Amino acid sequence: MSFSEFPSRLLENAVNEFASLPGIGRKTAFRLVMNLLKRDAEEVKRFGESIMKLHGEIHYCKVCNNISDTEICTICNDEKRERTVLCVVESIQDVMAIENTRQFRGLYHVLGGIISPIDGIGPSDLKIDNLEEKVKEGGIREVIFALSTTMEGDTTNYYLYKRLHKYDILLTTLARGVAIGDELEYTDEITLGRAINNRNAYQQ
Amino acid sequence: MSFSEFPSRLLENAVNEFASLPGIGRKTAFRLVMNLLKRDAEEVKRFGESIMKLHGEIHYCKVCNNISDTEICTICNDEKRERTVLCVVESIQDVMAIENTRQFRGLYHVLGGIISPIDGIGPSDLKIDNLEEKVKEGGIREVIFALSTTMEGDTTNYYLYKRLHKYDILLTTLARGVAIGDELEYTDEITLGRAINNRNAYQQ
Repeated sequence: MSFSEFPSRLLENAVNEFASLPGIGRKTAFRLVMNLLKRDAEEVKRFGESIMKLHGEIHYCKVCNNISDTEICTICNDEKRERTVLCVVESIQDVMAIENTRQFRGLYHVLGGIISPIDGIGPSDLKIDNLEEKVKEGGIREVIFALSTTMEGDTTNYYLYKRLHKYDILLTTLARGVAIGDELEYTDEITLGRAINNRNAYQQ
Repeated sequence: MSFSEFPSRLLENAVNEFASLPGIGRKTAFRLVMNLLKRDAEEVKRFGESIMKLHGEIHYCKVCNNISDTEICTICNDEKRERTVLCVVESIQDVMAIENTRQFRGLYHVLGGIISPIDGIGPSDLKIDNLEEKVKEGGIREVIFALSTTMEGDTTNYYLYKRLHKYDILLTTLARGVAIGDELEYTDEITLGRAINNRNAYQQ
């Protein structure tokens, strides 16, 4: 079925909007819109409103650049979090991934991307000045670089190191090693090499 | 990544709405919402509005039950269409599929479903009284049953036949046969059997 003949302009508009989303083709978009059409008016209204509210009502936290319904996000506002440890991440998805581990009780700093010359993203496109400002102000003991283990991640780590190593703080990165559940035989040699070099004392 | 910790209630709402669509899981829903978040306010507003308009502003044609922006759809309103031939289909998707063949110049009648006792859909749930009314009024020469070639389709065809055969009109169904591009070896025996029984004179 192609879509040269839409019986309704409004239907066509909705299909076009859904088809503009990544990974959603026109057939899928049509199926989704048909599903919405079968729903109650109220449900459809709620769906539309939830999208409209994505702009205007959702903020980025003034402190850490995480997504938030308020000016300062719930993490930065949480009195119980360790305020001397700052975890630098690329995106809010990474904040959520680390939060879900329940292993980290410090604060975050969301860069909003990663240095990637191919994509035309340089240091000035990221919240790096902001990060240095925070470190300069004092009160931070450790900055953790929690970026992807890609070339772009390594580049960004290096750039952050150059900007921050002059301050009297600890700079750390996430541990690299064999992932839990991985078989050695199938682990790539760079990961395995790092895992040997960074071996830890065996704990019973 | 699980989603126990959403940094924003509004973000969570939007993800939940997308995840309520068929075939969209929570991870995909999150990815779609993140894509919307990166867009301009105006684009997001347009997306939301296109959904809001699906109720209230989209109508079902009073004549054929096809989807329409106006009370009477563009097909029923088209003076050039053959008004004596009525093609009975299950859904508006089927109207669009047939329209795209550009082989049919008559009018449609959308049943809004198919008789399916398992799903609790009986004749009274479909626009069948409506169809009989049209036939009774006169002016129709032929009714084409263009339903699925499933047990439900056959049941509906039979029910429609029982309701309509007393009127002085031609009742037809779509041709059944080997699909174009199909290899005989892999064609199921029922289809192949019908294709032999309904064979046509060879045309050069």
